[in-house]
Amino acid sequence: MDWHRKHLLGLEDLSPEEIVSILDTAESFKDISIRPIKKAPALRGKTVATLFYEPSTRTRTSFELAAKRLSADTLNVTIAASSVVKGESLKDTVRNLEALKIDCMIVRHECSGVPHLISRYLEASVVNAGDGSHEHPTQALVDLFTIRQKRGSLTGLKATIVGDILHSRVARSNIFGMLRMGMKVHLVGPQTLIPRGVERLGVTVSNSLDDAIPQSDVLMFLRIQSERQKKNLFPSLREYSELFGMTRGRLQKAKSDVLIMHPGPINRGVELASEVADSPRSVILDQVTNGLAVRMAVLFLVAGGGREG
Amino acid sequence: MDWHRKHLLGLEDLSPEEIVSILDTAESFKDISIRPIKKAPALRGKTVATLFYEPSTRTRTSFELAAKRLSADTLNVTIAASSVVKGESLKDTVRNLEALKIDCMIVRHECSGVPHLISRYLEASVVNAGDGSHEHPTQALVDLFTIRQKRGSLTGLKATIVGDILHSRVARSNIFGMLRMGMKVHLVGPQTLIPRGVERLGVTVSNSLDDAIPQSDVLMFLRIQSERQKKNLFPSLREYSELFGMTRGRLQKAKSDVLIMHPGPINRGVELASEVADSPRSVILDQVTNGLAVRMAVLFLVAGGGREG
Amino acid sequence: MDWHRKHLLGLEDLSPEEIVSILDTAESFKDISIRPIKKAPALRGKTVATLFYEPSTRTRTSFELAAKRLSADTLNVTIAASSVVKGESLKDTVRNLEALKIDCMIVRHECSGVPHLISRYLEASVVNAGDGSHEHPTQALVDLFTIRQKRGSLTGLKATIVGDILHSRVARSNIFGMLRMGMKVHLVGPQTLIPRGVERLGVTVSNSLDDAIPQSDVLMFLRIQSERQKKNLFPSLREYSELFGMTRGRLQKAKSDVLIMHPGPINRGVELASEVADSPRSVILDQVTNGLAVRMAVLFLVAGGGREG
Repeated sequence: MDWHRKHLLGLEDLSPEEIVSILDTAESFKDISIRPIKKAPALRGKTVATLFYEPSTRTRTSFELAAKRLSADTLNVTIAASSVVKGESLKDTVRNLEALKIDCMIVRHECSGVPHLISRYLEASVVNAGDGSHEHPTQALVDLFTIRQKRGSLTGLKATIVGDILHSRVARSNIFGMLRMGMKVHLVGPQTLIPRGVERLGVTVSNSLDDAIPQSDVLMFLRIQSERQKKNLFPSLREYSELFGMTRGRLQKAKSDVLIMHPGPINRGVELASEVADSPRSVILDQVTNGLAVRMAVLFLVAGGGREG
Repeated sequence: MDWHRKHLLGLEDLSPEEIVSILDTAESFKDISIRPIKKAPALRGKTVATLFYEPSTRTRTSFELAAKRLSADTLNVTIAASSVVKGESLKDTVRNLEALKIDCMIVRHECSGVPHLISRYLEASVVNAGDGSHEHPTQALVDLFTIRQKRGSLTGLKATIVGDILHSRVARSNIFGMLRMGMKVHLVGPQTLIPRGVERLGVTVSNSLDDAIPQSDVLMFLRIQSERQKKNLFPSLREYSELFGMTRGRLQKAKSDVLIMHPGPINRGVELASEVADSPRSVILDQVTNGLAVRMAVLFLVAGGGREG
Repeated sequence: MDWHRKHLLGLEDLSPEEIVSILDTAESFKDISIRPIKKAPALRGKTVATLFYEPSTRTRTSFELAAKRLSADTLNVTIAASSVVKGESLKDTVRNLEALKIDCMIVRHECSGVPHLISRYLEASVVNAGDGSHEHPTQALVDLFTIRQKRGSLTGLKATIVGDILHSRVARSNIFGMLRMGMKVHLVGPQTLIPRGVERLGVTVSNSLDDAIPQSDVLMFLRIQSERQKKNLFPSLREYSELFGMTRGRLQKAKSDVLIMHPGPINRGVELASEVADSPRSVILDQVTNGLAVRMAVLFLVAGGGREG
């Protein structure tokens, strides 16, 4: 096992070996959640806190269950009604939490860079659960794990990521992770929602989904945030769906073993037609299930016996 | 033990033998909550999630403690701020939860039939914690358990249910359960709040509480929802209380061993005078305590070793 | 060990021996939170509920972790959306909770005296987590523990408490506890925020922070509630800070081993300059860490084997 980090802040600076360490550790944890007794003692007596400045059921729940299945004590802190109301600074909030001797803090914040900032104040481990439009590393690790699980290996596979690349921390983390693992990454979306100069990262860009489909091993659709629409970043949902939505017709032009992915929650009929979301090519629920194993692995590596291993 | 069901959705289709199985199992769990160490390992390593689309402290808390006392891991999902805001469908929400390998989902929803609908999508067990004005099966099981505990058996006892029958899932579940167990059921309330044709279920109906009291072994009062009043379904709280409220005077006309029941929370001075709610004839706090044992039994039967037994 | 109480409602009626019992028990629990496995079985199978009528992350979190580290099951009940909406009385709420066989109820309420009132209805133990402007006993015990930890003993030390004494339950509990333990207590603040006649408790009062600093072993600053300002109880934050804020300049006039304390959350630049809050003389984060050990001790003494010992 090749893991010496105290924090998981993003995939941008992880080596391929580190990513493989996480995926292999997740592999070894995968069985726990399908056993009759879904419990391992790896983090017994550790305290894992979620510190969420943005509402989230899915990601928080996935981390909470991951911690519980490793026998950690968990603490949910949603910041809204309490400390922010009382006007406490971010720094004081996290140092006070740390003073409670928390081993690992899972942080989501609407501002990019907050988990990195926090990690500088703390001796506890910090896991980035999504920061602004920057990174969402565990989601990308889940996606890599799922692709590897379905296809045996990652190297050489071609992924097309479709939608609002500009605002998507899921896309950014996937671009870093996929390229690091030897995949090819193609981005498709309305021109207004593709970051300018993104090709420098090593990806290709176009605005034709139809051209990209036949060559893709993985088609990953990003959730459309309808609030972006108000800013005229893309036209109507209907037009978006016609240009960038995955329909049954488009699925027929894809490779027969293509993987359809989506980080959820899906806007059915917008990013994906229901027939596509529920088709055998969709691995969307596998992503959710694998999310548990990957998050168990991350918590174990940063807060458990991992770093000594 | 006679139990082979994966879900508990309502009492309408349970057999007397199945109801007895639950009550007997609850009996065997009753001691756990009064021991110095309130804990049994029956659901260790199982995950029980509450999925509540309506706010509730009491029922959620009762289920959560029941799960914890059987050593299950618990997860509370209150849907409001998160997924519904993001517009995810009910079906996607529950399938995503299930993908986290949850063993049992306890569901409350303002729409009748939602737990039944959900149970069709899931391999996990579903327990109905109240759906619209349809059923609230664990509450009725608690009531049956409490009556049996106080009176030895159920057959032949006469229960009068008083109040807003029309909107009450507690009343519906009790009607099914009581009739199934050989009890007689009489309904009393304002005519506007009695469902038309309810006699077909096998109950009797009147609008005089005073006539019903002397013949009743059980007097069950339903909570008045003051929001109904705005729709002119009944006159003032004061008039309601005069006609259908249980006063000390009325208690004197009841059998000396009558049981006064209420699912809570009580509107003191409306459904029940405080002297009645706190009198020795009231078994309202027994209902709460028994709620734990009954819910432990239900969780054990649907999600534990019960179905194999 | 000298402890026979079922509740911890305040420090006003505790004897020095009882306070020492809590501090000594906390001492013995202090190590648990810095061990690799932060867990002791002292409250296994007990249920500890927090019942908070005021929002709080810090105090609730500290109690919740304390209970978890002693292996208790925990239940968080925040009253707002549910029972109060449904109009249930305080008495019914707590009796219903108790009917769930809860061993210890940790109560915060905006009205003084509520935990005392509740304790009269219940067989469960009640711990006051802050009631109105009356008492916040565990916070004062944390402060005593921290001072004793840093200075070896309490007798004869002089503490100056600075700020809004009038509305502060932290100040009241500290006054009782410090005097009981043989400390001298001096109060400093705007005249409008000092209770009239408070000297009868055995404290001294002035409105000059500068005069008090050189003679103080402990300087405890209270949080300013800006909502008080609207009532014209003190002038501007800037003027408050000039008169009663701890600046670097003022720190130079203090004893070299003075302890700077604050219950948190700090208004940086108001009660304390950041250089002071983060200086080696500040024991503010020690207070947070010690909060865990003290709350573990209190829960153990009232709900665990303590009373039999």
